[in-house]
Amino acid sequence: NLVFPGAEHTRFGHALGTMALMQEALDTLEETETPISPDERTAALAAALLHDIGHGPFSHTLEGLLLGGQRHEAMSRALMRDLDDRHGGALALTLALFDGAYERPFFHALVSGQLDVDRLDYLRRDAFHTGVVEGEVGVARLIRTLAVEPPAGGVGSRLVVESKGRYAVEAFLVARRLMYWQVYLHRTVLAGDHVLRGALLRVREHLAGGSRRASRDACSAPLLFFLDRARPDVDDPEVRRAFCALDDADVLVSLKRWRDDRDPVLADLAGRFLDRRLPAVTWLDADPPADERAAWTDAVSAHLLASGLATPATLDATLPYYLAFDRAANTAYARRSPILIRHSDGRVREFHEVADAPAESNGGQVTRPYVVHPKGITPA
Amino acid sequence: NLVFPGAEHTRFGHALGTMALMQEALDTLEETETPISPDERTAALAAALLHDIGHGPFSHTLEGLLLGGQRHEAMSRALMRDLDDRHGGALALTLALFDGAYERPFFHALVSGQLDVDRLDYLRRDAFHTGVVEGEVGVARLIRTLAVEPPAGGVGSRLVVESKGRYAVEAFLVARRLMYWQVYLHRTVLAGDHVLRGALLRVREHLAGGSRRASRDACSAPLLFFLDRARPDVDDPEVRRAFCALDDADVLVSLKRWRDDRDPVLADLAGRFLDRRLPAVTWLDADPPADERAAWTDAVSAHLLASGLATPATLDATLPYYLAFDRAANTAYARRSPILIRHSDGRVREFHEVADAPAESNGGQVTRPYVVHPKGITPA
Amino acid sequence: NLVFPGAEHTRFGHALGTMALMQEALDTLEETETPISPDERTAALAAALLHDIGHGPFSHTLEGLLLGGQRHEAMSRALMRDLDDRHGGALALTLALFDGAYERPFFHALVSGQLDVDRLDYLRRDAFHTGVVEGEVGVARLIRTLAVEPPAGGVGSRLVVESKGRYAVEAFLVARRLMYWQVYLHRTVLAGDHVLRGALLRVREHLAGGSRRASRDACSAPLLFFLDRARPDVDDPEVRRAFCALDDADVLVSLKRWRDDRDPVLADLAGRFLDRRLPAVTWLDADPPADERAAWTDAVSAHLLASGLATPATLDATLPYYLAFDRAANTAYARRSPILIRHSDGRVREFHEVADAPAESNGGQVTRPYVVHPKGITPA
Amino acid sequence: NLVFPGAEHTRFGHALGTMALMQEALDTLEETETPISPDERTAALAAALLHDIGHGPFSHTLEGLLLGGQRHEAMSRALMRDLDDRHGGALALTLALFDGAYERPFFHALVSGQLDVDRLDYLRRDAFHTGVVEGEVGVARLIRTLAVEPPAGGVGSRLVVESKGRYAVEAFLVARRLMYWQVYLHRTVLAGDHVLRGALLRVREHLAGGSRRASRDACSAPLLFFLDRARPDVDDPEVRRAFCALDDADVLVSLKRWRDDRDPVLADLAGRFLDRRLPAVTWLDADPPADERAAWTDAVSAHLLASGLATPATLDATLPYYLAFDRAANTAYARRSPILIRHSDGRVREFHEVADAPAESNGGQVTRPYVVHPKGITPA
Repeated sequence: NLVFPGAEHTRFGHALGTMALMQEALDTLEETETPISPDERTAALAAALLHDIGHGPFSHTLEGLLLGGQRHEAMSRALMRDLDDRHGGALALTLALFDGAYERPFFHALVSGQLDVDRLDYLRRDAFHTGVVEGEVGVARLIRTLAVEPPAGGVGSRLVVESKGRYAVEAFLVARRLMYWQVYLHRTVLAGDHVLRGALLRVREHLAGGSRRASRDACSAPLLFFLDRARPDVDDPEVRRAFCALDDADVLVSLKRWRDDRDPVLADLAGRFLDRRLPAVTWLDADPPADERAAWTDAVSAHLLASGLATPATLDATLPYYLAFDRAANTAYARRSPILIRHSDGRVREFHEVADAPAESNGGQVTRPYVVHPKGITPA
Repeated sequence: NLVFPGAEHTRFGHALGTMALMQEALDTLEETETPISPDERTAALAAALLHDIGHGPFSHTLEGLLLGGQRHEAMSRALMRDLDDRHGGALALTLALFDGAYERPFFHALVSGQLDVDRLDYLRRDAFHTGVVEGEVGVARLIRTLAVEPPAGGVGSRLVVESKGRYAVEAFLVARRLMYWQVYLHRTVLAGDHVLRGALLRVREHLAGGSRRASRDACSAPLLFFLDRARPDVDDPEVRRAFCALDDADVLVSLKRWRDDRDPVLADLAGRFLDRRLPAVTWLDADPPADERAAWTDAVSAHLLASGLATPATLDATLPYYLAFDRAANTAYARRSPILIRHSDGRVREFHEVADAPAESNGGQVTRPYVVHPKGITPA
Repeated sequence: NLVFPGAEHTRFGHALGTMALMQEALDTLEETETPISPDERTAALAAALLHDIGHGPFSHTLEGLLLGGQRHEAMSRALMRDLDDRHGGALALTLALFDGAYERPFFHALVSGQLDVDRLDYLRRDAFHTGVVEGEVGVARLIRTLAVEPPAGGVGSRLVVESKGRYAVEAFLVARRLMYWQVYLHRTVLAGDHVLRGALLRVREHLAGGSRRASRDACSAPLLFFLDRARPDVDDPEVRRAFCALDDADVLVSLKRWRDDRDPVLADLAGRFLDRRLPAVTWLDADPPADERAAWTDAVSAHLLASGLATPATLDATLPYYLAFDRAANTAYARRSPILIRHSDGRVREFHEVADAPAESNGGQVTRPYVVHPKGITPA
Repeated sequence: NLVFPGAEHTRFGHALGTMALMQEALDTLEETETPISPDERTAALAAALLHDIGHGPFSHTLEGLLLGGQRHEAMSRALMRDLDDRHGGALALTLALFDGAYERPFFHALVSGQLDVDRLDYLRRDAFHTGVVEGEVGVARLIRTLAVEPPAGGVGSRLVVESKGRYAVEAFLVARRLMYWQVYLHRTVLAGDHVLRGALLRVREHLAGGSRRASRDACSAPLLFFLDRARPDVDDPEVRRAFCALDDADVLVSLKRWRDDRDPVLADLAGRFLDRRLPAVTWLDADPPADERAAWTDAVSAHLLASGLATPATLDATLPYYLAFDRAANTAYARRSPILIRHSDGRVREFHEVADAPAESNGGQVTRPYVVHPKGITPA
């Protein structure tokens, strides 16, 4: 929402939307003679509703930092297990679908795959709210072309797309790719992510040093819990309790206090995020060689010393908050877990074999290196 | 957003949208030969952008409580004056337009009137995000029928709607009325408002009593500032500073702490709001007579005593948090500041004289009494 | 489509859309425990699909002229009976629903009533294609609030709207009213209707006079069939055969030939319609008194004589093609077959008793007199 | 509209839409400091409005047949010249832009190029009316990224797209490609085209044979004019007059008469088109070898003899109306007249060099062979 003022929709809406798409998908499969038992239906809907329950504040931006490199799926699973315990094992099948451990793997493909209801919903939702029309895919139409192979849908049966849906699949993959580069990997988004993570890492540095009470006192308790732990154990109930108590508001209230911190770096980073005074992000043609990196380092170092954000003694520790080399990457289509297309004569083929535009070139993994740096500060 | 999961749009988006509509309106007027000077244009755009700057957290819900009965326009004006001071009087004309003190009153009508760009934008925006189609009015088309009378647009000239826009005006008034009853005055919205205000009033009661440190410590500092003051003076710079530091996150973080408060009533109210376990709202055919009120009081009192939320000693003080009689009201069209329609022969008439459906009956003020009460607790 | 270039949708699309809405309506009723037998469902869908099958070229514009004052429903019924004969009585129940002769009258209300699926579809469709947003009503939402009273849905059960749908009903009635005045009764539409009917009436006059072979030869055969008959008998199979062979193309091809006719009046009328050089339509404040009519007659007569379209001898016969006094009328809500609202406590009341804006004032019948006349020719 | 019941929009709407997009494009260029003179603006708008004026009935389907292999642009140009003559040379610049003969070639690119306003409008329009969401491209946004290089826009200056519009370009090309395969080259469209052309070719065969008065008499005069000529000369005023008198209605009325023709083949073809009883179209993996063609010929020949549509004597002449091998082809991106992308540093590069998905693979020319044959009749 730093770039698109209207893009303020919630994870709650996304969870409901994902469940609604799962319902449509299951209805479609039943109409094409794939039996779905009531238990399977309930489990699939629950998996769709709960798939993102392990997302913390600011989702992907803070996921790695707060969970110490674990992915949010680990937390989702741990929280689903809590629910399962509390409801006497009622979510056993949900967990199996989520983990891909159920004997009819097409359920897992609907929950977590290249055409899962999660991706379908968020693409549709984000395109709607950002006004980026390229993302508006005929999701309803695509879902109505889903089927199961073999048709009876027994053990080991797989999710396929009827041939008439192949263009909808292609449109979805292209739309997703274009949304990544225009929205999710927009330079302003990358810049905001860097500053927000920088502020939290700075506080963690203070906490590790043990020297600065101020940042600790200013920090909201559930957030402090996670900044104090390098790799919280999702199997620890106390961790899960703290995680459920944590949301965007804790981060925002803490940032508002930190903007008055005595540490000028922390105050600067917090203020920049809150006031949207974000650094620049510049795309690079290739990963920068050593001399190019050195030139950037020189320029930004001079700026930090001149502005008082760093002294010669603190320069090395401060630099990473203001200068970073990174890469944006997106995979349009993953050949290793291919989308399957079923022709009217019954043959099933992998999507990249039948598409007019071979899927890799129409995607593959694209990586774009970039540098985050203060606005207006570039190598001479 | 308690009722419509997608309705999570921001005031920032609204401010930008309002300014964009002002731009369109001014373009329309200029094309129909009403001269607009560059200064007037800048001032009108600024007034549109800043008109809601005095809105605090949870907008209208907490406006009365935090500002001690003052309306947010008072705070908007005070903050605009700050901006004016800081920019050497650059907002003098903006303030005049906002206050209706400028010699060409049609500018004020665009900022604050029955067809102002604020109302046009939020109706459009809310209809889009809630999916309540009745609110989707042809705003762009309506704006293109705006004009100024007399056409030269000199001193005292008024805002009118060309005759061909009369159906768009009627549609706008109906859409607004239907949005009120279906969205803004939805029972779940009224219930959420009551609980949220209840929690804050309870803390204010504690603060006044002086007896409970816990609630105070748990309260975010900028929020505490306002709970400590019955009627903060918007002319006091410290008040305005605190106000600018206050947002939804302060309220949410405080509620999260209060849900563990030792006061069971505060803990209950905070938890109910956060978990969406809201009370019931029941529409009444008329304002309830004394005996009906007494019956409600008996039923809810018994419930509070049984549930431990109140003791005989605290019952009177606790009851208002759980039982309230109130009225929802909406005025579809205000005859005292009428919308003016200009016919092709040049005659200007008031909207309610030319509409097929007289404006009052197609609106007037409608008031609906209701009672807020615990779910399932009603008079025997 | 004379006014809205995009409004070129077909009756076939409307028939399909109407059937789709009937399906949704029946699904809703079944979910609320009103049993619908397979035969009833089939019959209701067929009635929705076929309800307008008796519409001829240019629908309502030529209905009265081609069918001699009969309404298209008479032709629809006759054609449905043909289908019924051809399919061994398979449409017996469809005909009963269509005629309101079935024991469960809510089916008839869905086919032909103030909330029938025909009206719902064409309002939605026309709003979409004309871009007149006021017509975009939440049809899907309205349909989901339909129910049957008493709930069991036995003999004599009626169609009602659940209370939560009352605002959708109000929005629908307002939208329909505004669409009438902005689209269906747009002055350019009225002007086009007058010219098209004029051309055909002129040919019929020739045919009656027996004197002019040219117009007859130029006329497409199925159209000639109807111009030759003052009141064709829909029970005559030959009439129905000719009717099915007749469509817009016959009218257009005939008009293209008539524009070169030796009769200057016919050539003028045909050319005006094809080239969109339409007469003016001026709204009048009231039905014009005799002297006002005389003034119009004088002005237009002078114009016809001067332009050579009439001679003193032919003036009286020619005048009606160029000057006409008529009225546009629309009834927003018909109290005699009221829409029924069912409250949550089970009470059923008529819509105009519960609406905030009483239905009559929010509609009733509104009549607007107008005069059709050559552009620029008005009384002195 | 054989496939998509709502797709009934007109060329008139398209012409207006194209002109509106031209207006937006010129506004964008002017805002980025490319001067456009009033004469240039008028000429560009006229070129957009008139670009398709040479389209006859059923557009591309009958273009080759009626104009004897000439493209509709030749007729458009001839008709524009008529207008130019009638208005004293007022369209000289319009004709120059249309022909690419003007010194500032970016105008021609807007009228006729890979990103011309014609393509932008019809893609948007068709996607809207067919509901094929993949075609809904952010046209307004794409247009706002157009610019001219060098910026001053002097002689020889070219149309470019600002770098930030590159994803919109990519989305447009993909959307266009997907619309072709899903809509324009839909099998039902190809089948309808074949039958309609078949009927007209059959009449032409009769006319050439001179033996059958019936078809000639039944044929609408302007259509007969073109069926009588193998290659009408667009420079002949009589040809242009006949062309302007010809529209869809002539074809439809003629078909309605031909369905009763004594020639069973003509009657069959006309009836099939009018009643939508279309032949089958089957995609082939590759151009069929001789033996496969022979097998199809055997199967269809047997069917024609058995059904009485052909006798052994007429079989060879009849077969092509019922069996045809053809290819659908679409070029997603034409490298020879490349789209130019201008980077923020001023470099201009060809689109296929900067796209993540190289433009050829993301398109290139794709050709799909198919066979038209009677439904249910296939080689043993």
